[in-house]
Amino acid sequence: MSTTPYQQLENRMARLGALNQATEVLYWDMAAMMPSGGGEARAEQLAALNAVVHSMMTAADLPDLMDAAEADVGLDAWQQANLREIRTRWIKATALSEDLVEALTRASAACEAKWREARPAADFKSILPQLGELLALVMEAGQAKAEKLGLGLHDALLDDFEPGGRTADIDIVFDDLADFLPDFTRQVLDAQANRPSVIKPDGPFTVDKQRELGQRLMDVVGFDFDHGRLDVNLHPFCGGVPDDVRITTRYDETDFTSSLMGVLHETGHAMYEMGLPAEWRAQPVGQSLGMSTHESQSLLIEMQVCRSAAFLEFAAPIMREAFDGSGPAWSSENLLRLYTHVEPGLIRVDADEVTYPAHVILRYRLEKAVLGGDLVLADLPGAWNDGMKELLGITPPSDREGCLQDVHWYDGAWGYFPTYTLGAMTAAQLYDTAKQADTSIEPGIAKGDFAPLMTWLRTNVHGKGRSVGPSELLSEATGRPLDAAVFKKHLATRYLGDG
Amino acid sequence: MSTTPYQQLENRMARLGALNQATEVLYWDMAAMMPSGGGEARAEQLAALNAVVHSMMTAADLPDLMDAAEADVGLDAWQQANLREIRTRWIKATALSEDLVEALTRASAACEAKWREARPAADFKSILPQLGELLALVMEAGQAKAEKLGLGLHDALLDDFEPGGRTADIDIVFDDLADFLPDFTRQVLDAQANRPSVIKPDGPFTVDKQRELGQRLMDVVGFDFDHGRLDVNLHPFCGGVPDDVRITTRYDETDFTSSLMGVLHETGHAMYEMGLPAEWRAQPVGQSLGMSTHESQSLLIEMQVCRSAAFLEFAAPIMREAFDGSGPAWSSENLLRLYTHVEPGLIRVDADEVTYPAHVILRYRLEKAVLGGDLVLADLPGAWNDGMKELLGITPPSDREGCLQDVHWYDGAWGYFPTYTLGAMTAAQLYDTAKQADTSIEPGIAKGDFAPLMTWLRTNVHGKGRSVGPSELLSEATGRPLDAAVFKKHLATRYLGDG
Repeated sequence: MSTTPYQQLENRMARLGALNQATEVLYWDMAAMMPSGGGEARAEQLAALNAVVHSMMTAADLPDLMDAAEADVGLDAWQQANLREIRTRWIKATALSEDLVEALTRASAACEAKWREARPAADFKSILPQLGELLALVMEAGQAKAEKLGLGLHDALLDDFEPGGRTADIDIVFDDLADFLPDFTRQVLDAQANRPSVIKPDGPFTVDKQRELGQRLMDVVGFDFDHGRLDVNLHPFCGGVPDDVRITTRYDETDFTSSLMGVLHETGHAMYEMGLPAEWRAQPVGQSLGMSTHESQSLLIEMQVCRSAAFLEFAAPIMREAFDGSGPAWSSENLLRLYTHVEPGLIRVDADEVTYPAHVILRYRLEKAVLGGDLVLADLPGAWNDGMKELLGITPPSDREGCLQDVHWYDGAWGYFPTYTLGAMTAAQLYDTAKQADTSIEPGIAKGDFAPLMTWLRTNVHGKGRSVGPSELLSEATGRPLDAAVFKKHLATRYLGDG
Repeated sequence: MSTTPYQQLENRMARLGALNQATEVLYWDMAAMMPSGGGEARAEQLAALNAVVHSMMTAADLPDLMDAAEADVGLDAWQQANLREIRTRWIKATALSEDLVEALTRASAACEAKWREARPAADFKSILPQLGELLALVMEAGQAKAEKLGLGLHDALLDDFEPGGRTADIDIVFDDLADFLPDFTRQVLDAQANRPSVIKPDGPFTVDKQRELGQRLMDVVGFDFDHGRLDVNLHPFCGGVPDDVRITTRYDETDFTSSLMGVLHETGHAMYEMGLPAEWRAQPVGQSLGMSTHESQSLLIEMQVCRSAAFLEFAAPIMREAFDGSGPAWSSENLLRLYTHVEPGLIRVDADEVTYPAHVILRYRLEKAVLGGDLVLADLPGAWNDGMKELLGITPPSDREGCLQDVHWYDGAWGYFPTYTLGAMTAAQLYDTAKQADTSIEPGIAKGDFAPLMTWLRTNVHGKGRSVGPSELLSEATGRPLDAAVFKKHLATRYLGDG
């Protein structure tokens, strides 16, 4: 027995981490590669893996091992942080029985599969049984964690996506934004009406050429194709594992612009994963932080950088060349107008930067009502449509463009949505500081050199793994806690020219 | 405790089967999708999964559970067969320590990765350390199994690929073929010299069109694309799981014929997997039989059916249409000559039906010498070249076309090679019986209707899973044990017109 209790824990976590990575690859395959008939067998594979991981995480001798490791005074700061992460995982894992974990995995797979039929059919009723079953299990799991963590149900669910995040804090920021945005949006629409209108580049844009262009700009951002791939999926996402990051997109042959920006968004996620501390790869402390930090990295690349005048001046000739384009539609000025066009719409993933928070606030408020018992699932479509009317002044023609549009609730990710807008604010704050800290960042972007930006992000965000929490990371990087004012200032500068 | 010991065993095997399926998907991904930089992380994932499976299979309470289940007099024949399979797996699993299993997985992944560099570089020396390490572990594992099973080392390794197969039996058949084939091959070459020469269809043949044609003919054979995929890999194979079968091929834009036949070969493997008994999916008895049975299914489709005059008469117009071909190169007579052309060559996977057994016999004899201590690995290239000279009269210009050409030794599959030629003989015997048992089979093939053939195969081969062994299966299906005479008669009919 020459290994210390801490080392024994690390060894177990390494194996557990490898099994979690296997699960990630199977999830990517399920979305990007698997034929429809493989779903049942895949659900069994994922359930078996989850059950094994859960039983390792709830092993009877783990508490003693953690106690002994925590008594070790020779551990450095990263090892201590790793131990904290292990302890938190253990608390969450022991809150749930193995049966509940398996039931959740199965119900999530079943509901997601059903959603893939119900969404195109705009048939919310058909998915109610699966969604009801899944939500009951999500709430059972959330309640169990809430008791262990001394939190409310909604906070306990949120904590899985945003460590340390609390609904009381989110309410304040979201109510503030919900107050600010309607009037601001009207001002933006007025100002926009006085500028030249957007000219859409003429297609068709073949999938092959779109893929090539996407890969070229991923390369510019710094994506390493020896450690990752770009594929197709209906719901774009970033999956895989840090040494092998798989991003997906969907292509529209009549419009390349939205898929391309989606690819750059996922590339932001991918750069975060690729930049996690290599020496802590398999350990809990080496993983990415909460979802708001993850989303801050995708939105920093997409919203802060790639929709900026500086980047589009660099990228416009590359886009033009990719599709043999010519004429005013391909000027960087027109592409900037296109990529910063504001228009209240029904679909979150197509929303612009200004109206996006309304989509998130709607979902967050509905989640809160459902979890708090103030709204039953059967009434979700009506409540959705009322909320859209109130926040954005529009009503979905069917649930396909309404409460069926996103997969998240249907794969069990209740509590997830607010992280999008927390991420947008975090992105604004990080980029604002980065540009001041290294004045070569913005000129670099203008010539397609992302190295200065990536160096700053690797030092201040990516390389930290989970050695600190989201709010600590932001304070250390920017000198202050999350502050909506920076996000508002960014919006005012970009959309009203109030620099 | 309302579940019987047998049911408890089934439950464990179902979970274990799901984990094995996860492993299969990860192997497919590694070959067909994974970027090179993902290899190290993938090796950790596979090692972790293998270790979990191994520890489940060697659980301390398993012997008592098997004893109790075996005492249950109420089991039906399939359940009894399932128990026999579980017992055999347990014997093999307990023969190996968890450390040895992990070391084998790692060494196999490392050696295979090295092979992907050493083969194009024709650099056998560079891979000697990895191959030596892997072979030592393979032999250690084989010796441990040999002791438990009361077999010699080579037979114990063979048994993993060919249940119940023995080198003493193989020696007899292979020596017989090695005697028969040289003179027969000369006769075939003489006869061939008196026929019109083969006209190669003119390319280029784009990958997209080749893929479409492959998919169209896979569909004709009966491949269900809701339960499978076709992708690209350097070494064509059939992977995935029965509900989600993944086959791969490689394309040559100057010649579509070899890739197409490769696709049909893998489709034969796939039909076997897809036809396994669905109600026994996750259990040991529901898996495919040994490799010779598997190869009999690919060779039945490829060699017996798809290279026949009947099938090519049906397929020639489809091929012509796929590439807008015209002229004598696209006649079914020419395509038949092309697909039955005999020419001694260096590469096994490119070999024709007549010279293929020589490639296998060479490898089998070399394996036997290495495993018996009569040949050291460093001398393998020389012994290979001597054997090629003796059996086929030709010498490889480098080890790329010699002992580095196949992945099998380099991923640890020592003992595997003879199953190719055992499969070829089995295929001839099964198809001969099938055509007599259902006289609509051959006319069906001639019009692209594979249903009668598939019905016979599902009943007599696919649907049996592992409820019987390879020799029992063949005897039940054809009324006699494996008989090389049927294979010889097939060759004589096809190549010398001795019908």
